[in-house]
Amino acid sequence: MKMIAILLAGLSMATLAGAQQHPSIMLTKSNVEAVKKGITQYPLLQKSFKSLKKDADKALMTPIEVPQPKDGGGGASHEKHKRNYQDMLACGMLYQLTREERYAKFVQDMLLQYAAVYNSWPRHPKKKQNPGGKMFWQNLNDCVWQVYTIQAYDCVYDYLGAANRKKIETDLFEPIVKELSEVNGEIFNKIHNHGTWSVAAVGMTGYVCGRKDWVDKALRGTALDGKAGFLAQLDQLFSPDGYYTEGPYYQRYAILPFLLFARTIQQYHPAQKIYEYREGLLKKAVNTALQCTYTNKVFFPLNDAMKDKTYESEEIVYAVDIAFSDMGAGNDLLDVAEQQQRVLVSDAGLAVAKAIADGKAAPFQYKPVWIRDGADGKQGGIGILRSGNNGGQACAVFKAASQGMGHGHFDRLNLLFYDNNSEVFSDYGAVRFLNVETKNGGNYTKENETWGKQTLAHNTLVVDRQSQYLGNEKKGEEHAPQLLHFSTGANYQVVSAQENNAYSGIQLRRTLILFMPEGAAAPLLVDVFNAASQEKHQYDLPFWYQGHITNSPFEVQANTSSLSALGDGFGYQHAWLNATGKVKEGSGVITILNNKRFYTTTFIADTAMRIQFITSGAGDPEFNIRNEKAFVLSQPAAGNYSFVSVTEPHGKNNPVAEVTTGATPQVKGLKLLRDEAAATQLQIEHKKKVYTITLDYNNQSSFITIK
Amino acid sequence: MKMIAILLAGLSMATLAGAQQHPSIMLTKSNVEAVKKGITQYPLLQKSFKSLKKDADKALMTPIEVPQPKDGGGGASHEKHKRNYQDMLACGMLYQLTREERYAKFVQDMLLQYAAVYNSWPRHPKKKQNPGGKMFWQNLNDCVWQVYTIQAYDCVYDYLGAANRKKIETDLFEPIVKELSEVNGEIFNKIHNHGTWSVAAVGMTGYVCGRKDWVDKALRGTALDGKAGFLAQLDQLFSPDGYYTEGPYYQRYAILPFLLFARTIQQYHPAQKIYEYREGLLKKAVNTALQCTYTNKVFFPLNDAMKDKTYESEEIVYAVDIAFSDMGAGNDLLDVAEQQQRVLVSDAGLAVAKAIADGKAAPFQYKPVWIRDGADGKQGGIGILRSGNNGGQACAVFKAASQGMGHGHFDRLNLLFYDNNSEVFSDYGAVRFLNVETKNGGNYTKENETWGKQTLAHNTLVVDRQSQYLGNEKKGEEHAPQLLHFSTGANYQVVSAQENNAYSGIQLRRTLILFMPEGAAAPLLVDVFNAASQEKHQYDLPFWYQGHITNSPFEVQANTSSLSALGDGFGYQHAWLNATGKVKEGSGVITILNNKRFYTTTFIADTAMRIQFITSGAGDPEFNIRNEKAFVLSQPAAGNYSFVSVTEPHGKNNPVAEVTTGATPQVKGLKLLRDEAAATQLQIEHKKKVYTITLDYNNQSSFITIK
Repeated sequence: MKMIAILLAGLSMATLAGAQQHPSIMLTKSNVEAVKKGITQYPLLQKSFKSLKKDADKALMTPIEVPQPKDGGGGASHEKHKRNYQDMLACGMLYQLTREERYAKFVQDMLLQYAAVYNSWPRHPKKKQNPGGKMFWQNLNDCVWQVYTIQAYDCVYDYLGAANRKKIETDLFEPIVKELSEVNGEIFNKIHNHGTWSVAAVGMTGYVCGRKDWVDKALRGTALDGKAGFLAQLDQLFSPDGYYTEGPYYQRYAILPFLLFARTIQQYHPAQKIYEYREGLLKKAVNTALQCTYTNKVFFPLNDAMKDKTYESEEIVYAVDIAFSDMGAGNDLLDVAEQQQRVLVSDAGLAVAKAIADGKAAPFQYKPVWIRDGADGKQGGIGILRSGNNGGQACAVFKAASQGMGHGHFDRLNLLFYDNNSEVFSDYGAVRFLNVETKNGGNYTKENETWGKQTLAHNTLVVDRQSQYLGNEKKGEEHAPQLLHFSTGANYQVVSAQENNAYSGIQLRRTLILFMPEGAAAPLLVDVFNAASQEKHQYDLPFWYQGHITNSPFEVQANTSSLSALGDGFGYQHAWLNATGKVKEGSGVITILNNKRFYTTTFIADTAMRIQFITSGAGDPEFNIRNEKAFVLSQPAAGNYSFVSVTEPHGKNNPVAEVTTGATPQVKGLKLLRDEAAATQLQIEHKKKVYTITLDYNNQSSFITIK
Repeated sequence: MKMIAILLAGLSMATLAGAQQHPSIMLTKSNVEAVKKGITQYPLLQKSFKSLKKDADKALMTPIEVPQPKDGGGGASHEKHKRNYQDMLACGMLYQLTREERYAKFVQDMLLQYAAVYNSWPRHPKKKQNPGGKMFWQNLNDCVWQVYTIQAYDCVYDYLGAANRKKIETDLFEPIVKELSEVNGEIFNKIHNHGTWSVAAVGMTGYVCGRKDWVDKALRGTALDGKAGFLAQLDQLFSPDGYYTEGPYYQRYAILPFLLFARTIQQYHPAQKIYEYREGLLKKAVNTALQCTYTNKVFFPLNDAMKDKTYESEEIVYAVDIAFSDMGAGNDLLDVAEQQQRVLVSDAGLAVAKAIADGKAAPFQYKPVWIRDGADGKQGGIGILRSGNNGGQACAVFKAASQGMGHGHFDRLNLLFYDNNSEVFSDYGAVRFLNVETKNGGNYTKENETWGKQTLAHNTLVVDRQSQYLGNEKKGEEHAPQLLHFSTGANYQVVSAQENNAYSGIQLRRTLILFMPEGAAAPLLVDVFNAASQEKHQYDLPFWYQGHITNSPFEVQANTSSLSALGDGFGYQHAWLNATGKVKEGSGVITILNNKRFYTTTFIADTAMRIQFITSGAGDPEFNIRNEKAFVLSQPAAGNYSFVSVTEPHGKNNPVAEVTTGATPQVKGLKLLRDEAAATQLQIEHKKKVYTITLDYNNQSSFITIK
């Protein structure tokens, strides 16, 4: 009878058939045999299985240890509890795939040890917030632990006797659910990624343990009124384009509980049609997360972000596999899966590995896009311009999104520029040494507030040496930038937005264009930043660059024997002033050599403009800040003013072969022909041609003309 | 008859048979058919041929251009003449391998164009020295041009009619030979790598054109007395271990003309037994060049050196192919050839590609070695300690060599430390932007003298804030450090040397040990630096590190709002003082996070010691210096003093998986038990064991004991 059920179920029926059985989340009972067969057939699944088995076997070699919680992030007890849930999940899956008892017994023994001591633990001694975590210093990690552990439990459910199940559910999961949904109920009910981890933990536990009360709370909040919980989070945390308001780094982080919980709901309660919720929101969210990466695999480090986070991270392995197998995402996701070099050993991973083995992978489709922010899609957004293939693409990122909550930076109209698989104009990211306990317990350091978030740390305009919204998050949350225009043409891509509230009485508008002149090897990045004000202000526009300046052919006064911090607040206390330059003529030029390629920025200048060369790292008694470099176009006193520049990637410098080509830029001249509230017109001389670009800000149908 | 000769000749006869024929250098007439066949059989040769053909075909697409010499390094005319010799060689070889006339015609036409204008050119307008180059700004580049061009000529020799040959030899090669051996005769007769390029150019041209007079000059100097020329250079520029006195970067550069000219001599005059000269010196030189690289492929950047130069560079492709095919070097060279991803399309490349295809490649044999410097082997040397496989090897490099002529740095007893395929304690290398014309024409910038060469820029002791030998090259040439001891044991490798003349009245002695304690994952780097002096001096010992400090648990006073240069001479004017620390107890600890691994240096300290945190980049009005960081162990006034430290690689920090392990070092204590002129004894507490290391400096048989 059981056999027949399995045979009848097949892949398509897994959603229903699985729900009454264990396991039923990523790996499902009815698909275990298919996955096992796939392991012998599809290289990526095989490789992933081997790696999983290695982890599981390693876990079995080590005595089980459930330490009393003690350390902050990166510390021994912290890392051990993390390791434990990973080991349990690996062993749980191995049990399903091999039926070898030792794997199940490992999970059972460890769960029983946790069950035996969990209730004796006091609140975590290094708790980060109130009431704080129990197993970890922050509640968030406790939630993550449960999200993984419940999957392991699901895998050994049938192996555990009823007595052990009772013990584990009563002495461990029940108190954990209470810890998450009641003790830390405020987080549970938050519309925030921490809340998502919390509801996913409780909801998944509810499904697996058959506790509908937990599921209901998870879906609709503890008050069961729908004002909190998973559905409210789906409604409010994502834009209609699937953009997560905290930014790409947290989108990556949050996507795992969203997709895992969604998959669980889909398995147990397909009638909910969670994948179709908000017109297939979660599928869009996966695509949007990937669109927010560069071809070096790294997420755009907007807002608080660790800069080395790539789409190889586990969360995106889940996202890609589930989106491909469950949501009908395109074959270009297989390219990402190939680069991840693994799949989940699961129903979804089977589908991905099979499709790759069948030769279906296509290059990931990076596209120029405007991604809307805000639940209503009206809170600004992220503009991404891209030109070239996935090998050496030029990419300009325009941050015109809303504040993004507590991890948001004061960086509206910020520009990031990538080329040749490298950062060119970069964002500092977060001031944090993740999981390095000696650095503030692995948490954000205080310079994240005083430097990382401040406007000066970004490639956008600073007015009167103050940060946008005076660095006040709440004020920032009240307004969002406005999209003016986004379009692409045969030889250009353009995005334009304005921000009228960041500085009182000043309208900011920035327009970025990737423009490919005739016969050019790479597109030009054209940048027009208009500030409009009745009063005079100091305007500072930094360009934080990677690489080394190789040419700045204008008068530069360097501070050679002593340096001073640039100021005393809003991040200016964290910048050293290395040198100040002055351009005599109508435009200046700065060339940078970065990753064997040259980048020449030609900018309009007048005699009042100063070019400041600065380095981050002042005011840093604990060595928390990296030394990054910027040139700052600075206008000491201006009302209406436009910063206009063109950045040209050119040439090659091969240090191994000792060959340099194309060291001279092709942009020979840059002029501002018109500069009005309603229009900007500029002229670029490139090779032997002269191009006139007109921006007609109030004219959507011909916003840009290039002649 | 011809066919029979070819068939009889085979590979082994190539040396004799080739000499009367064209071509006869890298690609030889009797082997052309074998190489052509090999291209169809051996993947690496095939790939290399395709790349060569692509270059040749690209050359044919472009109109021939022989510009009037005008620009410095990296400039347009400079790069064009470089390109031309590369194109000619590619086309010459393609002609031999395809017999397609268009390739030969390209070489012929270009040579005739050069012949038509060469004599009309004045001395180079940007000449770097007197009399200076003609085609290029320095004579050196003219020599390189001829070394490549004569090979191209050799390839099309038979194609050119006698009339064209006469024209080219009379109007181009004769004046070039005169230019090199007479006009720039001083360089030609120099015992220096520039001299080697010069004699190789003239000698190879002599063999190909049948001009014995040119060959004789090249071998024995213009006076034909053997005091100059190739043989004298072989005698004097290399140590008996094949170390080239200018250091690894220039060893790489010089090895090409040495090997190419040697191969030419071997082809035309095998009785000279040039490969056996000085007991197989050139073969040793190739191995020594490779031993002077790290597992990241990069040459140790000792003395003036570009830091991104790897053994993938063309010179080392020649060196590896010739050493393997002609000199019987081991199969571990095939590993290097595989990583170079190409071979020369030639007799030698055929042998390499075949051996690789036959599965003969073995990992390159990096070994702990003491490499002697000086023609007599008594001018100090380079000590290299290595532990671990080629994947993530720990490697300490000890510079105890002689001055190394004009490119030498004042860095005796300098230490470089590598681990995990990364630099840990690094050397600045040269202050130069090679081939970047806007940076002093691509030549060394003035900061190479004031910073790059100065002692402070290195990981060795600076006394009284002055450089060794007061920065005087001639004084430095008078003395060399002395090896005290080099040996390896079961769990250690040790090298020790002294330098008694760098500072008047002060004896410097440094001992480096790679020591593997029981159960350690990586070896400890133990560093004992003794200074002995009757008078008191300021001693500064910098550790220039890569990565970011994550822990310095002692009192640190940071300069947060202003910085000053550390001093006003000997490089101190180029260092900013960021912070000063003071250790209370007997030892201090600094941890650095570099490439996802931790490095903790534990050092003996007293209350007088100051720990200075510095950054290079002061006194740099033209942005020529990179910002590198060091901590400096500084003793304000000491006579006899020993700096003792232990650096431990530990743990892992994986930012993608967000896992940190082993963040706490295992070295728990460090004590100096004895510190005498004849002996140092120290105690290291590692994990739960205590090790006592005794250095008995006057006892060669038991120089080191570890208990």
